[in-house]
Amino acid sequence: MKTKKVFLTEDEMPRQWYNVLADIKMNPPLGPDGNPISPDMLAPVFPMNLIEQEVSTERWIDIPQEVLEVYNIWRPSPLVRAYNLERALGTPARIYFKNESVSPPGSHKPNTAVPQVYYNKVFGIKKMTTETGAGQWGSALSFACAQFGMECKVYMVRISFDQKPYRKSMMQAWGGTCVASPSTETKAGRDILEKFPDTPGSLGIAISEAIEAAISDETGKTRYSLGSVLNHVMLHQTIIGLEAKKQLAKINEYPDVIIGCAGGGSNFAGLTFPFVLDKINGRNIDIYPVEPEACPTLTRAPFVYDHGDTARYTPLLAMHSLGHAFMPPPVHAGGLRYHGMAPTVSQLASEGIITPKAVTQVDAFKAGILMARSEGIIPAPETNHALACVVQEALKAKEEGKEKVILFNFSGHGLIDLGSYDKYFSGSLQNYELSDSDLLESEKIFESFPKPQLLKSR
Amino acid sequence: MKTKKVFLTEDEMPRQWYNVLADIKMNPPLGPDGNPISPDMLAPVFPMNLIEQEVSTERWIDIPQEVLEVYNIWRPSPLVRAYNLERALGTPARIYFKNESVSPPGSHKPNTAVPQVYYNKVFGIKKMTTETGAGQWGSALSFACAQFGMECKVYMVRISFDQKPYRKSMMQAWGGTCVASPSTETKAGRDILEKFPDTPGSLGIAISEAIEAAISDETGKTRYSLGSVLNHVMLHQTIIGLEAKKQLAKINEYPDVIIGCAGGGSNFAGLTFPFVLDKINGRNIDIYPVEPEACPTLTRAPFVYDHGDTARYTPLLAMHSLGHAFMPPPVHAGGLRYHGMAPTVSQLASEGIITPKAVTQVDAFKAGILMARSEGIIPAPETNHALACVVQEALKAKEEGKEKVILFNFSGHGLIDLGSYDKYFSGSLQNYELSDSDLLESEKIFESFPKPQLLKSR
Repeated sequence: MKTKKVFLTEDEMPRQWYNVLADIKMNPPLGPDGNPISPDMLAPVFPMNLIEQEVSTERWIDIPQEVLEVYNIWRPSPLVRAYNLERALGTPARIYFKNESVSPPGSHKPNTAVPQVYYNKVFGIKKMTTETGAGQWGSALSFACAQFGMECKVYMVRISFDQKPYRKSMMQAWGGTCVASPSTETKAGRDILEKFPDTPGSLGIAISEAIEAAISDETGKTRYSLGSVLNHVMLHQTIIGLEAKKQLAKINEYPDVIIGCAGGGSNFAGLTFPFVLDKINGRNIDIYPVEPEACPTLTRAPFVYDHGDTARYTPLLAMHSLGHAFMPPPVHAGGLRYHGMAPTVSQLASEGIITPKAVTQVDAFKAGILMARSEGIIPAPETNHALACVVQEALKAKEEGKEKVILFNFSGHGLIDLGSYDKYFSGSLQNYELSDSDLLESEKIFESFPKPQLLKSR
Repeated sequence: MKTKKVFLTEDEMPRQWYNVLADIKMNPPLGPDGNPISPDMLAPVFPMNLIEQEVSTERWIDIPQEVLEVYNIWRPSPLVRAYNLERALGTPARIYFKNESVSPPGSHKPNTAVPQVYYNKVFGIKKMTTETGAGQWGSALSFACAQFGMECKVYMVRISFDQKPYRKSMMQAWGGTCVASPSTETKAGRDILEKFPDTPGSLGIAISEAIEAAISDETGKTRYSLGSVLNHVMLHQTIIGLEAKKQLAKINEYPDVIIGCAGGGSNFAGLTFPFVLDKINGRNIDIYPVEPEACPTLTRAPFVYDHGDTARYTPLLAMHSLGHAFMPPPVHAGGLRYHGMAPTVSQLASEGIITPKAVTQVDAFKAGILMARSEGIIPAPETNHALACVVQEALKAKEEGKEKVILFNFSGHGLIDLGSYDKYFSGSLQNYELSDSDLLESEKIFESFPKPQLLKSR
């Protein structure tokens, strides 16, 4: 039988994460005064051991044994040869995907939720707070908290909370508490509710509530957790690419093209950063982050200093940004509706080491259906964006008659997002066009901020 | 690191199914005249190659290469040591589970959907019809049809169709067509709709529609498919237990207790039949099928001849039955709401080779939550019933201070059934008590049928 799934044994699981900060130059985060922030300034929000990881420039960072043991529930994840997709496309390309949908919450998110909760616990923290939009991140953090016996409180954007009641049940099954945001539990929430009692909520508001809940706990035993964007999140996700590299080596393959969808950047970074290291060292690889045309952070927005959240709680981050008040159209890939992009991913894009692509949501779902019918697995709406690019690249290889090796991240399954497929089949899923003038308008918001330097890492 | 997941390589996947009919005595299915039916009588409904498999008494039956290649999408499935559940229960028992939730539709159902579609295709069939209640089986058959390029038409009980729109989307993602039953597409459906325009539908009606759609197709290229009860379904599911045996042998283990939930019997049979063979040959194993107290087919109903469906389309089958018109209370484990039980499983119970158990739905969900918080995976409501029994056995081992090995089937995940967890958490999940007199009343329906012989296989 042809080998379809390449496994690593549990003993072959990588013991260290790869830290891209060792190999690229970065503009520092800036505080309200325009000066680089110090680690201390983040201490009320994050535990110091994670802050140290956030700023570390060590290339390899040990994965704690306790984290490995929880990873072991679903990792190493399989690397799969997509024979059926190749056949459906009639391509000479060999297509592989890393199946991150096998985790209990169904996506790559627990790769960072688990170590974040672990480090908080080691630091003496008892309770984690976070926000969630579509619900993937809140679910992953609840799962991780259950593993370490920690409390978990999730502020879920009101409109998603109402539309996706099952996400709340999922968090409850893991012992997490999920409330609709804005809530009456925080000052930030109450202020908004007083002004706009019927607000559908937003990620910006939910972040404000989660941060407030963390820093206002008088016992000092609560901290906030973020599921993307930050350096330590990207670090934890590199387990994906490190495993993929080992798995490909087992079958004597190496990718020519690597593809991941990109919202905040974490699943893309997780798969690609270990290969970025090879590219910096001279290897020729095309690396494509794929975003929705409706939220074209890397493809159409400038590399600037901007806030990570709407309410301006975060430091200024050097990144591609559509403006921190940008309201993305309601595409169904909720995980890709973010105005900014991880500073590390943004830096690599600004240097041309990675090459951003954008696809429409209808093309994304079309590719997702092809995946479901050929390889059998129904992808998350976010993952469909990666798949649209995979299809393009596989067809290009067919035109050129080239035996390319394509590797992509199957970041999550779509079993909790079947409502979006329902929309697709009923023909009510639409594309959104953003005019240049709209984008220019939304980007005015960071005009007065300092400008990042254009750094070259090689 | 302690070994948590035991894998087989793709090359180690079993190449044959185990047919329990080689090792047990069975009462034959009877036709309307009270005489054993001949294979020809089933020909309008099933293809002849599957009918031959249904009546075969060969012990080992080869798995076709084409089936193995589709199994290869998710099989061999992992055998997992439930260290965290053991710790949560403080038991000296070693608990293992076979994780059948890793299939794309999320349960064990594709183990038989794939070969059924394959054999139909080989026989020249172009289209499959079936019924579905909660939606697991309709999803699995749609998935299998996508793999072999066959058409798939699913009649889904109206009330579930309305309550679980995502199941329809799932089938659509795989190219299946799903309509609410009763529909206007069949005479059976139209007749019911004329009398009861607002009927919520039933499995009995949906079966009638699916069979009618198959046998009334004038091209002769359509057949019906059933997801449980029949001998060939049990046969296909034995891949679960055959893999588990190999995996346990790799770590020098053998189970003392084996547990599976039982509705029609297929996931239970799949895991246990290969061990039943050992038990028949003298090995000492406790084998427990677990059903809901609200549908106590094996635990409280007699071993009789009865019809497999409400509308009396099927032959008379020798099985434990609550009466073919029995309407089970609305427990959330839809897959366990069946009035009868696979004849093979019934025969083993009647001989005392397996020992049926029943648990309440609230105890089942309690065990499911413990599983979710310890092992990380959220189980299907059906699987929760097996888990309630696992918890009982693990606590018994603790009381007795015995190092038992417990093996159970994790038949499916609960990600499409989170609504039932929502009910559990909101306190509105209730237990149902069935009085003896209610059961006696419903069992009157088969009083006039022939009685099966009490056969002894050993």
